[in-house]
Amino acid sequence: MFSFHINAKINRARAGIFTTPHGDLQTPVFAPVGTQATVKTLTPEQLKGINASLVLSNTYHLYLRPGDELVRDMGGLHKFMQWHNPMLTDSGGFQVFSLSKTRKIDDDGVTFKSHIDGSTHHFTPEKSIQIQENLGADIIMAFDECSDPNDAAYSETAMQRTHLWAERSVNARTRADQALFGIVQGGVNADLRAESAKFIASLDTPGIAIGGLSVGETKEEMHDMLDVVVPLLPENKPRYLMGVGTPEDLINGIAQGVDIFDCVLPTRLARHHSAFAPEGRLNMMNAAFARDARPLDETCDCYTCQTFTRAYIRHLIVAKELLAGTLLSIHNLRALIRIMESIRSYIADGSFETRVPALLDQWANNAKRADC
Amino acid sequence: MFSFHINAKINRARAGIFTTPHGDLQTPVFAPVGTQATVKTLTPEQLKGINASLVLSNTYHLYLRPGDELVRDMGGLHKFMQWHNPMLTDSGGFQVFSLSKTRKIDDDGVTFKSHIDGSTHHFTPEKSIQIQENLGADIIMAFDECSDPNDAAYSETAMQRTHLWAERSVNARTRADQALFGIVQGGVNADLRAESAKFIASLDTPGIAIGGLSVGETKEEMHDMLDVVVPLLPENKPRYLMGVGTPEDLINGIAQGVDIFDCVLPTRLARHHSAFAPEGRLNMMNAAFARDARPLDETCDCYTCQTFTRAYIRHLIVAKELLAGTLLSIHNLRALIRIMESIRSYIADGSFETRVPALLDQWANNAKRADC
Repeated sequence: MFSFHINAKINRARAGIFTTPHGDLQTPVFAPVGTQATVKTLTPEQLKGINASLVLSNTYHLYLRPGDELVRDMGGLHKFMQWHNPMLTDSGGFQVFSLSKTRKIDDDGVTFKSHIDGSTHHFTPEKSIQIQENLGADIIMAFDECSDPNDAAYSETAMQRTHLWAERSVNARTRADQALFGIVQGGVNADLRAESAKFIASLDTPGIAIGGLSVGETKEEMHDMLDVVVPLLPENKPRYLMGVGTPEDLINGIAQGVDIFDCVLPTRLARHHSAFAPEGRLNMMNAAFARDARPLDETCDCYTCQTFTRAYIRHLIVAKELLAGTLLSIHNLRALIRIMESIRSYIADGSFETRVPALLDQWANNAKRADC
Repeated sequence: MFSFHINAKINRARAGIFTTPHGDLQTPVFAPVGTQATVKTLTPEQLKGINASLVLSNTYHLYLRPGDELVRDMGGLHKFMQWHNPMLTDSGGFQVFSLSKTRKIDDDGVTFKSHIDGSTHHFTPEKSIQIQENLGADIIMAFDECSDPNDAAYSETAMQRTHLWAERSVNARTRADQALFGIVQGGVNADLRAESAKFIASLDTPGIAIGGLSVGETKEEMHDMLDVVVPLLPENKPRYLMGVGTPEDLINGIAQGVDIFDCVLPTRLARHHSAFAPEGRLNMMNAAFARDARPLDETCDCYTCQTFTRAYIRHLIVAKELLAGTLLSIHNLRALIRIMESIRSYIADGSFETRVPALLDQWANNAKRADC
């Protein structure tokens, strides 16, 4: 039901096809984030219009609201949100640690309080898998502990627990139509990362995620950790760098051998009036755009750029009209998806490596990191 | 450049075609309101998807933000908001009286303070026409004074001033590609309404609007005033009942001989989680819909009803996701546009009058009045 075929390769960078029950994913791929079963402000029709292929949704959020059993009873996440292409759910681990008030972590699992109403809940690897099976995404994640990458002392504890929980996640799963990915942790410690990569690879999951590299480490640390981890992963399985990232991160990540990315950055920037553009990130609230008749990006093929001026988008923002967020989300997501499309063709035609400096240069002004 | 052709008629109800520089309008027509050069939360593509034909925008709002000269310099309102079908602007009169702090009204015009920043502005008939010429809609309105329909003493003063201003509006206009409509006022006084209808008809504008019937009078009063006004209007010109209304108002208005309607009701209801439905207006926040797998309206052909369940829409509302407003706006607007499409066919096939009771009955539960 799942297979990964690499079509072209240049050093570590690869272009391939990951087959899922809801269609083939061309990799490298960038997944828009639909936290609460909706990519904020966009219809599935608009997502198709920007050639989105994989959409991520969050287990923690959907468990709390509307509830994974409700989603299951409504026919599963694809049907509920009407996204009939591949979907991925995370394990809930990241949000349990970042959004909720954590009460207790031990080897069994995590007790936490909902960020919505303060109610108490308990997640274990088995529970996370059960929720993800109820949701029914094509790609699901092992339950992991995502620790502060700069807390070296704790990184080993969190990694060991992540390994224990990865095994329990693998044992708990029952659905053959879902690909469960193990997650490599280990903070910014090269030895721990290597140990984690080897352990997770040994579980023989159909894909492998690399976690904890979007939560505060430097770009150099991310680069160094990928340099340690990727060579230890099996060649024939897709690699997913969770919660990353900026255009620069995507380009560098692909060069390092990553196949799948997701990040809230494009839609979050949109809600904060920012647009990816050739000259750098634009703050579209700026009065300089009041009479700017150009599109956000003259090279972009998205509905927003093909239809509207910067002046109009700026007016919508100043007038507090919600359409601004929709139009900016369409463009920002399309910008990252276009990077992926270009890079896939560059890997296929053999030109990727020689193009990396120009690509990085082109996106240098858009490279500011954001918490994904 | 403008012509009105009546294709079919049953007593007062008519179905026709109003030709404008941006295309033919099939009447009776309901115009979605795009107050600030955007029908809230919807792209022009989505508006086309619900078969919207005429869009209204507000002179008062666009004058203040982004400014009518900016819109003119960006190529006019059609190009600015990328709506290339017919457009209508009001005169700004209604909002000057309803939204801003009015400082002074005399025969020259109105001095008022912006509801945005408190700055002082002065509108005259000439100024309103100049702004509307800068915006460039196909149908524009004479500047009028919209008084409280229940303040009988003031209704005559306001009406006389509206007549004076209508003449000045007609004299001020310079663009041949815009149809200026005069506005009948007169509150809920039958004699004043008759006097106003005759006077405005005498100006020989290419269409005639009926104002002040969406601001607090009863349904019976509205009915009675239309009964007085419509027979005094020329048969061969379109009649526009401003700021109306509910499904019931549309059906009754058409039976009384009205051709054009606009109202913020469908989009405002959407923002307040309400949906038009066969069983009445639905409050989609209601827990009863949590697991309701039906569309909002099983008979509706809109994207929302063809794609999503009530359960999903309710989830979006509870999770405070903006997509809820978009999906409800699509449906609520489409519901009113579908009524218009049906009625046009019923007038054409001669069945309209016999169908009115059933139509009113069908929409009885959605008939609650709303301030447009």
